[in-house]
Amino acid sequence: MLDSINLNADMGEGFGAYDIGSDAEILKYIKSASIACGAHAGDPNVMHRVVTLAKEHGVSIGAHPGFNDIWGFGRRRIDMNPRDLEYLIAYQLGALQAMAAYVGEKVTHVKPHGALNNMAAENLELALAIGRAMKTVDRDLIYVALAHSQMERAAEQLGLPLAREAFVDRLYDDDGNLASRKLSGTVITDPEVAKDRLVRMIEGQQIISRNGKHIPTRMDTLCVHGDEPTGVAMAKAAREALASLGVDVVPLPQLKLS
Amino acid sequence: MLDSINLNADMGEGFGAYDIGSDAEILKYIKSASIACGAHAGDPNVMHRVVTLAKEHGVSIGAHPGFNDIWGFGRRRIDMNPRDLEYLIAYQLGALQAMAAYVGEKVTHVKPHGALNNMAAENLELALAIGRAMKTVDRDLIYVALAHSQMERAAEQLGLPLAREAFVDRLYDDDGNLASRKLSGTVITDPEVAKDRLVRMIEGQQIISRNGKHIPTRMDTLCVHGDEPTGVAMAKAAREALASLGVDVVPLPQLKLS
Amino acid sequence: MLDSINLNADMGEGFGAYDIGSDAEILKYIKSASIACGAHAGDPNVMHRVVTLAKEHGVSIGAHPGFNDIWGFGRRRIDMNPRDLEYLIAYQLGALQAMAAYVGEKVTHVKPHGALNNMAAENLELALAIGRAMKTVDRDLIYVALAHSQMERAAEQLGLPLAREAFVDRLYDDDGNLASRKLSGTVITDPEVAKDRLVRMIEGQQIISRNGKHIPTRMDTLCVHGDEPTGVAMAKAAREALASLGVDVVPLPQLKLS
Amino acid sequence: MLDSINLNADMGEGFGAYDIGSDAEILKYIKSASIACGAHAGDPNVMHRVVTLAKEHGVSIGAHPGFNDIWGFGRRRIDMNPRDLEYLIAYQLGALQAMAAYVGEKVTHVKPHGALNNMAAENLELALAIGRAMKTVDRDLIYVALAHSQMERAAEQLGLPLAREAFVDRLYDDDGNLASRKLSGTVITDPEVAKDRLVRMIEGQQIISRNGKHIPTRMDTLCVHGDEPTGVAMAKAAREALASLGVDVVPLPQLKLS
Repeated sequence: MLDSINLNADMGEGFGAYDIGSDAEILKYIKSASIACGAHAGDPNVMHRVVTLAKEHGVSIGAHPGFNDIWGFGRRRIDMNPRDLEYLIAYQLGALQAMAAYVGEKVTHVKPHGALNNMAAENLELALAIGRAMKTVDRDLIYVALAHSQMERAAEQLGLPLAREAFVDRLYDDDGNLASRKLSGTVITDPEVAKDRLVRMIEGQQIISRNGKHIPTRMDTLCVHGDEPTGVAMAKAAREALASLGVDVVPLPQLKLS
Repeated sequence: MLDSINLNADMGEGFGAYDIGSDAEILKYIKSASIACGAHAGDPNVMHRVVTLAKEHGVSIGAHPGFNDIWGFGRRRIDMNPRDLEYLIAYQLGALQAMAAYVGEKVTHVKPHGALNNMAAENLELALAIGRAMKTVDRDLIYVALAHSQMERAAEQLGLPLAREAFVDRLYDDDGNLASRKLSGTVITDPEVAKDRLVRMIEGQQIISRNGKHIPTRMDTLCVHGDEPTGVAMAKAAREALASLGVDVVPLPQLKLS
Repeated sequence: MLDSINLNADMGEGFGAYDIGSDAEILKYIKSASIACGAHAGDPNVMHRVVTLAKEHGVSIGAHPGFNDIWGFGRRRIDMNPRDLEYLIAYQLGALQAMAAYVGEKVTHVKPHGALNNMAAENLELALAIGRAMKTVDRDLIYVALAHSQMERAAEQLGLPLAREAFVDRLYDDDGNLASRKLSGTVITDPEVAKDRLVRMIEGQQIISRNGKHIPTRMDTLCVHGDEPTGVAMAKAAREALASLGVDVVPLPQLKLS
Repeated sequence: MLDSINLNADMGEGFGAYDIGSDAEILKYIKSASIACGAHAGDPNVMHRVVTLAKEHGVSIGAHPGFNDIWGFGRRRIDMNPRDLEYLIAYQLGALQAMAAYVGEKVTHVKPHGALNNMAAENLELALAIGRAMKTVDRDLIYVALAHSQMERAAEQLGLPLAREAFVDRLYDDDGNLASRKLSGTVITDPEVAKDRLVRMIEGQQIISRNGKHIPTRMDTLCVHGDEPTGVAMAKAAREALASLGVDVVPLPQLKLS
């Protein structure tokens, strides 16, 4: 069995006077933060606050880029051509790098947000566009990619460091993709359910679809959703599950990645 | 008399389907481009296009950060606290750095846009906020500051490289600040008028206010407005004036700055 | 003493995935809702939800227009020319009228938001711009104006119905303007303090500045801030104070206005 | 053969400092203007300017609502649920009504923009959402719908006045939908080509696909694209074609609609 894994959450998804999530609390449990970069959410103030907190907690800093759609919170699928998307991603990565400079840290991973994550999981062109932006801005950036997705394939094609991701608080379809958030019950809200499920996933090195299908899966990082009200409870549950299995939880740059 | 000077213009001020200015044409005449960074104008596509063109023309790349106000095109004065402003500037600098990575270039100067430039010229707190952002992101960035302004003072206080700027196509008040664009006649549109005025400015090492006051002024860089319909004609006029005086026109990083 | 008065609150200040305030709860206590119209906050979904709730609670519907500045939540002072502002207000009024049509109601008052309210209180040109927009869109709209402000004067000049407003949860300067929110202690958070203060204001037909100055004041409507965490408690406190004085609380259109 | 028809164009698609199209010129040739409402383009200033010009030219005023996506100019397909879309449309209609009040005119038609128009042409749910918004705001609004599209069906289902639209400057697929703008040659730029094609369409009461398929079609209104550089030439060509056929060109409210 694996001896170490990463735990990440999306963070910094406020905007101006608006706040969402419980960043300060979740940071106690995770090891890598995927920080919104101002396109679907986030702004320079929020980014500054979160990189500062992350530094204090020894949490590695990553980008959580999304579609340029504050109103839709990056959850609306938007039809973009890959080149436009690529530059939009590069822009967000650079912006976060500047904010990370405030705490003397580097941005070390990239994890797409919301509808973009879903679309890039399915569409190699989009997944490659994200990867090209990463490679241009910093070729050491780790591509956090849904296991079995087109993002995994894109990272491999581009030779980018790859962290395969599984979700603590979301159900899967039989093809290994996340079940739509619009379907009732696909977001897990009970920490005990999440914990049991996670133990089985880690022990078996597999994800388990909502129909019970077991899909052998290498998992480098586990994700909890910081923008869900249950974010803190889920992060805690994940830590407990991993502790019970004797698996170390480490920042992404400390993982041995393929 | 001085033997070299820089000529800069603001660039990349389109947004999405909207275009403005004549970037490709103006780039033939200038040596440094101040590129909008997505807050008051500009977007990742435009930024990519302009850094690519700048590279082709041997034009150095700088940031042209502004207020986060696309609708107002950064021309509305907005009351921001200095800390919020600082992070907003850092964000924009980082975003442009990422786009400059596409052409293997660095961002080498910062020139605030529009109402922000006017306010920072008058207000040391705002001028320092801009400077702190620069120092955090890259301490070698050149602060392009209106001569005699609070920005000049801020650059000196922070120990940032400083390029004092004068305007080819705008009239001055007696205190050395730009006369308001709202006043009729303060934007020069006749290239011959601009050329004559520029020769007198360079020869006398002085700016000349609209009331005829001569203000001794060190000038490291001259600005033409890329978003004015007369931008190309002004850039050409400036080059002719400088050629007639035997003054070399060089990119900002090649100037000897105080 | 007066036998009836209005109690209003700002509402509907969410945006997309972001929520703020406790609209559903506050609506139980107030009689008129000033609803954000999508410029500083609010969106069509939120507006629809709030007009529906307002209708259910017998609460009259008003517009709460602000600067076009979601990020700044309309709290940043923005320098706009009066004509631009006028059209921006008209736009917002029309948008809310359309949403009010969903519940078969009319928009009956206008109360500017945040920095715009502060600026229009001081600046007659801006106050008139707001009034002209109201007069164009529906000349029966009630101008909710800070007592003693330039908005009061503008409403009188334009012949618009006028409701003079006083604040339950904010301190005043000696000139009758609201003390800046940036000064510590100027937002009242203790409902008992607010209640006592309100009783003295109503009994004496006066506002009381933070220096203790009594300013005789006609008050047609009292405001609580829906975007403050104490909004519900303040609304309740105001109702109790008014009940203890035997003053009826009625929707704005039922008041006899000057 | 028909004795009268309408000619419409999209208008007012600037935003802040950005302008696009040649509204003032095109207004001389058309009889109905579809005016952007601030979501994909347009702003209160532009809307005011265009309704004023429209009034001067005897051109009827309609809404041209789009997705809330200034950057994408409403040309990116965005996945929205029908209810969100409905309210977004109602909001835009109300905003334009307020601006039309400045010239004492009513908004008399609705024509969706860009990607929304394309999606609503294919998807009845979206087409109905637009129609419900219209019905709520003003049940006399004319639904300008691509002939043979789901919008036509939606207008019929909802009992809304319906104007079937054909395009002067765009090619069609065999199913009667517009050929994608992304395909080369699908936007007609030669006025003579457009004129000949239009004469054949009107004479035959049919649209002709790019493969030469003739599709019998009732046409109540013809559209030219105001945001194309060829807008004015196309509008002129359409007028000449119609004049040569002896067909009157009238504002939408003067047409006899089904």
